[in-house]
Amino acid sequence: MKKKIIVQKFGGSSVANAERVKHVAKRVVATKREGNDVVVVVSALGDTTDELLQLADQITSSPCERELDMLMATGEQISVALLAMAIHELGEQAISLTGAQIGVLTEGTHTKAKLVDISPKRIQTLLNQGNIVIAAGFQGVNINQDITTLGRGGSDLSAVALAKVLKADVCEIFTDVEGVYTADPRIVSTARKMEAIKYDEMLELASVGAQVMQARSIFVAKRYGIPIHVRSSFSKKEGTMISDSANAMESMMVSGVALRKDEAKITVRDVPDKPGMAAKLFQELAVADVNVDMIVQNTSREGATDLSFTVENGDLPKTLRVTRATSKKIGAGEVTTDEGVAKISIVGIGMQSQSGVAAKVFKVMAKEKINIEMISTSEIKISCVIRRETAEKAVRILHQAFGLSKAPTKKSTAKKKTVKRK
Amino acid sequence: MKKKIIVQKFGGSSVANAERVKHVAKRVVATKREGNDVVVVVSALGDTTDELLQLADQITSSPCERELDMLMATGEQISVALLAMAIHELGEQAISLTGAQIGVLTEGTHTKAKLVDISPKRIQTLLNQGNIVIAAGFQGVNINQDITTLGRGGSDLSAVALAKVLKADVCEIFTDVEGVYTADPRIVSTARKMEAIKYDEMLELASVGAQVMQARSIFVAKRYGIPIHVRSSFSKKEGTMISDSANAMESMMVSGVALRKDEAKITVRDVPDKPGMAAKLFQELAVADVNVDMIVQNTSREGATDLSFTVENGDLPKTLRVTRATSKKIGAGEVTTDEGVAKISIVGIGMQSQSGVAAKVFKVMAKEKINIEMISTSEIKISCVIRRETAEKAVRILHQAFGLSKAPTKKSTAKKKTVKRK
Repeated sequence: MKKKIIVQKFGGSSVANAERVKHVAKRVVATKREGNDVVVVVSALGDTTDELLQLADQITSSPCERELDMLMATGEQISVALLAMAIHELGEQAISLTGAQIGVLTEGTHTKAKLVDISPKRIQTLLNQGNIVIAAGFQGVNINQDITTLGRGGSDLSAVALAKVLKADVCEIFTDVEGVYTADPRIVSTARKMEAIKYDEMLELASVGAQVMQARSIFVAKRYGIPIHVRSSFSKKEGTMISDSANAMESMMVSGVALRKDEAKITVRDVPDKPGMAAKLFQELAVADVNVDMIVQNTSREGATDLSFTVENGDLPKTLRVTRATSKKIGAGEVTTDEGVAKISIVGIGMQSQSGVAAKVFKVMAKEKINIEMISTSEIKISCVIRRETAEKAVRILHQAFGLSKAPTKKSTAKKKTVKRK
Repeated sequence: MKKKIIVQKFGGSSVANAERVKHVAKRVVATKREGNDVVVVVSALGDTTDELLQLADQITSSPCERELDMLMATGEQISVALLAMAIHELGEQAISLTGAQIGVLTEGTHTKAKLVDISPKRIQTLLNQGNIVIAAGFQGVNINQDITTLGRGGSDLSAVALAKVLKADVCEIFTDVEGVYTADPRIVSTARKMEAIKYDEMLELASVGAQVMQARSIFVAKRYGIPIHVRSSFSKKEGTMISDSANAMESMMVSGVALRKDEAKITVRDVPDKPGMAAKLFQELAVADVNVDMIVQNTSREGATDLSFTVENGDLPKTLRVTRATSKKIGAGEVTTDEGVAKISIVGIGMQSQSGVAAKVFKVMAKEKINIEMISTSEIKISCVIRRETAEKAVRILHQAFGLSKAPTKKSTAKKKTVKRK
């Protein structure tokens, strides 16, 4: 039987201290002793990243990003070395590698570099020699051998990309939750862990605030068909499989409800209804590195239109500065903001083929007198901006209305097998 | 006028916290603004090394040395990044480099690798572009790109070696003392800072416990004729120049008195007087990585001899184990130890040409009833093992007897110019 190659990724909370590092080592060694080749990707130890940022902050309020990457990359270098030691202690061979040593080539700006390529050669050789390979996540080097970091969710991306180049059988993402839920269990007590979910659904859930994984890693996994297993570092239970293989979820109309509470809404009044006005604004925002989330533009009235969009609350001051300046330039009117909003989204592959989901969402919300301020839809997602104070209630009623606490029935499981899609 | 290239090395206490890093940055920027090209070598921030070792210790009592190097190297990586940020804050261009990025090639065992070569190319290019280059001391890579560290005094060695390959005009070693003293000022209140000292004198002083610099770096500096300026991080005063150029010290019979208090003496009785017996013992000790300091063997009596040697107190348990086993093998007698000793040494280039120094040492010690247990001499050094409780007194009386608190006289300064040596 061919040996399986398994990539396991452990986040910062899984390696927060020496005890947890030892725990992770046991988990890794157990996987190895089941007869698999194991590559482990680790993030920085719990608080390390914050401590390093504090150090930088004592020196300067505007650190150069190249040096910030140099500094931050030490976090993962510490955790890979410690994990290798902990694995040796359990009697297995292990070797740690930095991003530079692996050959994680990146391009683009420091602190949010783009992954270009990973050379599998050294890791492959080390695996063949019987080693468990411990790879520093989140980091790489650019063509000048300068250390770069991959930005938010970078370690997940490292893991998925390694799984791709090593042709791994599965990429296991260990977190402090047991998998992907139909809604946040802290908000909805009957939220259910999904056994399986499609890449596209997970993509939509990730982008609307299911904290489990960042969208960029799921995107890469989908592109190369890498099965991802999201599971708990603290239990042996199976978590949630993310893949495109047939699964019981397929026939579910809606698979999950996600909430993003840290949103702010910006409205620009009286934008001249000429081509290129919106483009101008959003390009300026992109240059300023603001991640614009939802954009809604109404039909114009008297040659002008109102344009609304949302951003993360943290980005609001920067966003306002840029928006006000651009608004003046393009001859638009007043710029107003609203920090009291949240975004709720329901996601499901099944929406593609079943009508009436949007109608049902609006009806359920209306019944509970929850006012919808903005609406945006994709093929498999409906997002609504609502008042923040009504957000949790909205999650609960939608979760119930779509029957998400019940596991998929036998009938739907049988049905999925005949459904052919993609 | 040709631009000077200056290498500046700052130890861990000079960069113990953010305030000190900023202070170092000012110092570096001042040197740059005097019109020099500046390369800075930094050690890890004050306590970082200890903190990292503690982390490792929580995982295992016997960490793999490759992984220990991986872990420890993060210390310097943090300090170079922070120093670069602090220099940017002062408006100068600076760029930090790890050992791997510089191309510090090493060989030999992890945690005490030997420096093979440094490629000056990238640093040279960066200097030409107007950058201050911040190099991580203490670290390099081996031929497999595995991170290595250079062991004790490694950052000094990095600085001296960089000065060599860059053809620097001077290598400045910043410490928390103002230079090299004729004796430890904490023991001898009249101890005097020397303006200049020869490499060989400094080598002997370093090897007998003047804590300023490790012998290995001075050895490299001597070999390539690199002038070293030992000076204080906390004052602008000139420190001590180490070089082979003519200086006022030359005609001084004795230039300094050094003390090493943490010595232990081991005596092996009745070693068979046959070739290879001592070799056998010291080879075993070398394999066990014990650094043997002084060795004294008396003329044999009745086909056997007593062999005594000293080691650092910390190495005593290991030394005893190896010595007892070897003693049995070679048919020697009892092994005894004495932990209550210290080694006092007087050093001076002048000894080479002036007789009577040893006699004077013995006479001065005898007068104060200080018993000498072992004696060892080199061309420019006399070392004596004495009881530890008499050690500080011995330093004081020898310092006085050789008139070390007085600066070299005009006469001796004039004289030096006619003296030709080497």
